[in-house]
Amino acid sequence: MTDIAKPYLLFLADTENPTLAKTALGLRDWAREDCVGQLRLTQSTLDIGLPDLSPSEAAARGARSLLIGVAPVGGQLPEAWHASLLAALEAGLDIVSGLHVRLETIPALAEAAARLGRRLHDVRHTKTALPIATGRKRTGKRALMVGTDCALGKKYTALALTKAMRARGIDATFRATGQTGIMISGSGIAIDAVVADFIAGAAEALSPDAAPDHWDVIEGQGALFHPAYAGVTLGLLHGSQPDALVLCHDPGRSVTSFFPDYPLPSIEDAIAAYLPHARRTNPAARFVGVSLNTSALDERAARRAIEDAHARTGLPAFDPLRLGIEAVVDEMLSAPQARAVAAA
Amino acid sequence: MTDIAKPYLLFLADTENPTLAKTALGLRDWAREDCVGQLRLTQSTLDIGLPDLSPSEAAARGARSLLIGVAPVGGQLPEAWHASLLAALEAGLDIVSGLHVRLETIPALAEAAARLGRRLHDVRHTKTALPIATGRKRTGKRALMVGTDCALGKKYTALALTKAMRARGIDATFRATGQTGIMISGSGIAIDAVVADFIAGAAEALSPDAAPDHWDVIEGQGALFHPAYAGVTLGLLHGSQPDALVLCHDPGRSVTSFFPDYPLPSIEDAIAAYLPHARRTNPAARFVGVSLNTSALDERAARRAIEDAHARTGLPAFDPLRLGIEAVVDEMLSAPQARAVAAA
Repeated sequence: MTDIAKPYLLFLADTENPTLAKTALGLRDWAREDCVGQLRLTQSTLDIGLPDLSPSEAAARGARSLLIGVAPVGGQLPEAWHASLLAALEAGLDIVSGLHVRLETIPALAEAAARLGRRLHDVRHTKTALPIATGRKRTGKRALMVGTDCALGKKYTALALTKAMRARGIDATFRATGQTGIMISGSGIAIDAVVADFIAGAAEALSPDAAPDHWDVIEGQGALFHPAYAGVTLGLLHGSQPDALVLCHDPGRSVTSFFPDYPLPSIEDAIAAYLPHARRTNPAARFVGVSLNTSALDERAARRAIEDAHARTGLPAFDPLRLGIEAVVDEMLSAPQARAVAAA
Repeated sequence: MTDIAKPYLLFLADTENPTLAKTALGLRDWAREDCVGQLRLTQSTLDIGLPDLSPSEAAARGARSLLIGVAPVGGQLPEAWHASLLAALEAGLDIVSGLHVRLETIPALAEAAARLGRRLHDVRHTKTALPIATGRKRTGKRALMVGTDCALGKKYTALALTKAMRARGIDATFRATGQTGIMISGSGIAIDAVVADFIAGAAEALSPDAAPDHWDVIEGQGALFHPAYAGVTLGLLHGSQPDALVLCHDPGRSVTSFFPDYPLPSIEDAIAAYLPHARRTNPAARFVGVSLNTSALDERAARRAIEDAHARTGLPAFDPLRLGIEAVVDEMLSAPQARAVAAA
């Protein structure tokens, strides 16, 4: 499991396009208290509203790591960025990267990190030795986000749910399974980067035995219906042993992203497909909500989509960034026996 | 994809226990024509009935690779084996290993292989850059073995089916997804060793576009109900896009091997569980047979188990090493529309 020292200096380099700065924007939105500032190389670089700081200024304000918050075109690390990264290492910061290229394969960085005793975190790559799953039921409670597709709000749903649970005094931990999630929480396992034999084992390691009332809220990955990533989804589902499942869906999407020949299932069919697999490792698994990404809808249409999802499934439906999350927390905390299980 | 030069000299080292020589025995039983001899280090080493040959004698008889046919206790390569492996490289042979330890991490072997221009094949590890699955339907036909558990005859079923099809003049290729299968066929992908994101992509690469009447007969892995390996199984199922599925089952087994808390599904439930996932990437997918591992049963009990499986599923049931495989080939070749699909 990756463990990262926070808070961060967010490195924006010379990136002007917000689409390439998704990581930095996610960090700002979901871990604002962990971001001491931004490092921009030019006047025209995107400004995400944090104090402009040099690596040494950031270190003086408590920063422990420089986080590469932008994606270079092509996935390689531009030469022009090296000086900033070396300055960060000299200033006492570790470096955190989600790029394809491994930081340790860049000789200048590897040498400086070794000399200065700093760490280079490549969150896309896992170096931890993982166990084969045991299937043994663990103590504590777990919620897992699952979806009808990739990239429709599983991470944000898990983060919002964790926040709402904590606000009620519930002992809840967000468990990251993807690189941005790992950067936000400072730990986790990039589940799609582990060797196939170890998917469920990695998921077991990610949410270990815990106190009876503790909740792990686990970021999901992929979808059981996804022609490329379903294996990751199923292994994560088995290893997570969720008590509670939240189905994440984008009501504006009818086909799988980038796979136009693969229609999305209805939310009812998705629930019916996930449930038997979930119950293989936790017979008490049940759905507790439907999370809708309504960002493309106006307030009235969003409300209608949420009402429709509720009517179709009998479950609390919500948009975690907009409406209805408290009802899902209520459902999670309700005794499972006291409510009908949807689509059993 | 791994591509290995055959035929082999099977290296038995000083192994006396047949259980540790499973790989060599599998090769002898399924690829006898590819085995020119055995290399034993002591008089008390297991004799699997092949000519005893030194590496240079084997090379003179046409051998192209020395294959490590035994598992050392602990997975490491004993020092005592180094001399034989170096002699093989000097004699002109490549080395093929399914051990956990990578041959190239042993300096003496890496140096000799580089100097002599030989190849070191670690079939447990994949070095090929694999694509993300596309979900695009490929030409040609495919059969995939699936199971109620691991280790109950999926590889032998695929091998026997390939052999029976070829005997009828059908253009059929065995496609290996595990290390013994790769050694037997000389090529394949160890699907449980690929990075999780690429499981379905590896399966797509394994059985590329082919002539309309060509069949790929694909070795299965794991089981959809397996608490540790289901992710591998589902990715392999999606990427294989099978037209025909064969369910492999051991009628004497009631719980998952090594996971006694996980009961096996009935064969009817297993068929019903696999089919919707198979149809996600190939809507024409159907089951064509139930392969039973009846090795623990006498002839009469085996016949009864096969009749029972047929009665329960309506499908041809068989033991690939014993009884009934021709009916499965008939079923594969029959027009899908002409027969009822079991458990649809």
